[in-house]
Amino acid sequence: MRIDILSLFPEMFEGVFNSSILKKAHENGAFDYNFINFRDYTENKHKKVDDYPYGGGAGMVLTAQPIFDAVADTTKNSEKKARVVLMCPQGAPYNQQKAEELSKEEHLVFICGHYEGYDERIREYLVTDEISIGDYVLTGGELGAMVVVDSVVRLLPGVLGNEASAPEDSFSHGLLEHPHYTRPANFRGMEVPEVLTSGNHAKIEEWRKQQSLLRTQERRKDLLATYPLSDKEKEWLKKISPKLD
Amino acid sequence: MRIDILSLFPEMFEGVFNSSILKKAHENGAFDYNFINFRDYTENKHKKVDDYPYGGGAGMVLTAQPIFDAVADTTKNSEKKARVVLMCPQGAPYNQQKAEELSKEEHLVFICGHYEGYDERIREYLVTDEISIGDYVLTGGELGAMVVVDSVVRLLPGVLGNEASAPEDSFSHGLLEHPHYTRPANFRGMEVPEVLTSGNHAKIEEWRKQQSLLRTQERRKDLLATYPLSDKEKEWLKKISPKLD
Repeated sequence: MRIDILSLFPEMFEGVFNSSILKKAHENGAFDYNFINFRDYTENKHKKVDDYPYGGGAGMVLTAQPIFDAVADTTKNSEKKARVVLMCPQGAPYNQQKAEELSKEEHLVFICGHYEGYDERIREYLVTDEISIGDYVLTGGELGAMVVVDSVVRLLPGVLGNEASAPEDSFSHGLLEHPHYTRPANFRGMEVPEVLTSGNHAKIEEWRKQQSLLRTQERRKDLLATYPLSDKEKEWLKKISPKLD
Repeated sequence: MRIDILSLFPEMFEGVFNSSILKKAHENGAFDYNFINFRDYTENKHKKVDDYPYGGGAGMVLTAQPIFDAVADTTKNSEKKARVVLMCPQGAPYNQQKAEELSKEEHLVFICGHYEGYDERIREYLVTDEISIGDYVLTGGELGAMVVVDSVVRLLPGVLGNEASAPEDSFSHGLLEHPHYTRPANFRGMEVPEVLTSGNHAKIEEWRKQQSLLRTQERRKDLLATYPLSDKEKEWLKKISPKLD
C-alpha cells in the first residue's frame, strides 16, 4: 500500500511513523509513505496557501489551487484510482468497517488542514472520502490521519504477529472485551475472580462471554442494539440484569 | 495544567508535542508535561511489565504493579486529586463535552497500553476515567492520548489566538459547519455561490445557517436529533428538504 500525506506540518508524524508497528510495517515493505507539504505547490508569490473567506467572517480558508495541484502530482503515476481522504469534523464518523475497507486499497492520499477551513471546491471536486475520527475539535487533521493510518496498516497482511492481534479483535465483533487478569492472583488485597483460576475451560469461556455482554450493556447500549444476540445470550442478559425486560 | 503520560513508547509523542499549538502552549506555560515509562517501575527482575492471562487465551496482559506504582509516584505531590485516564476501546466515547470538562482540571494522568490488555484491577481500583476516542482498533493508547491532549490544551485560556478559534467553534454548537470559499471566485471553472460575493450580509448569514443545517441533516442526522431547532430553522429545513415531514 502507498500512503501520501498532504500536510503543512509533516514533522508532526515523525514519532508515530518511526515507532512500533508502523515502523516495522514500513521496514517490512507492507506500506510506503510520503509527506507532501502543499505549500510547495502554491502559485502565490508570497507562498501563501490560505486567504480570507468570501462573505466575511473570522478565520482563514485553505485555497483550492495548492491542494488540487499537489493531489494531481501525487496521483499522476498511480495505476489504480487513489482514495483521496479529507480529514475534517464534517466527515463521516470513522469506524472499524471503514478501516477494513481502506485496508483493501492500493493508494491512499490524506489531506490535513490545520485550524483552517477548506475551500468547498476541494470537497466537491477533489476528494473521494471525508472522514472525522470523532465529535471533538482538534487543532488539525494530522492526528486524524495518524489514527486512520495506524488502524489501516495494522490490518495489512503480515503486519501483526499473533500475539498482538488477538486481544483487540473482539472489538471488531461488536461487543466490548471481557476483563483480563494476570499474576499475581492477589495484588495488594485485590483478587482475581475464582473462575479464572479454576482450570474449568468451559466455565471460563462462559464467564468471559457473559462479562463481555454485561460490559457492553452497561457502557455501550448503542453497540448492543445492533449486535445479533443469540437466544442463550438473551437469557444470560436477563439473568444478569433483570431490569432489561 | 500538568499532564503526565505513562507509556512504553514516549518517543511516539515527540512530533506532535513539538509542533504547532502544543509546542506554543507549552512554551507559554499553559501546560507542562512529563513522560513516564512505566517499565522503570516494574519489580520484575527481567523488567517485564506483562504476563499471561489467567484462564488462558492469546495475547498478554499488562500487570497491575508497575502501573499502580508509577501513578502513585506521579500523583504523590499533586495538591488536587488527579484525573487518571485509561485510554482503551472499552472506555466512554470521547466528545467535545468531555474535552471541556477535562480542560478545567489541574492534573491529568494518561495511561497508554500498547496492543495488550490491562489487568482489570487497574480499571477497578486505579483510574478515574476510561476513554475511547472512537470505534476503531488502534495499536495502542498513545494516539488516543495525543488526541485528548490536543483537544484539551487548545481550550486552555490564552492558547488559541482568535484567528485559529473561530472556524472550528461551530462544531461545538451541535451542527456541522457551513461551506467556506476563498479566492478566486472562479477556480478552473468551479464557481463560488453568488450570494457570498453579493455583499448582502443578512443574506450571507441566512445562507450559512441554512447550509449548516442542511449539511448536518444530510450527513449526521444523529446530531440534528439532539439540536434544539428554532421555529425558523424548522421552516427552513421543510423548505429545503420537503422529505423531512
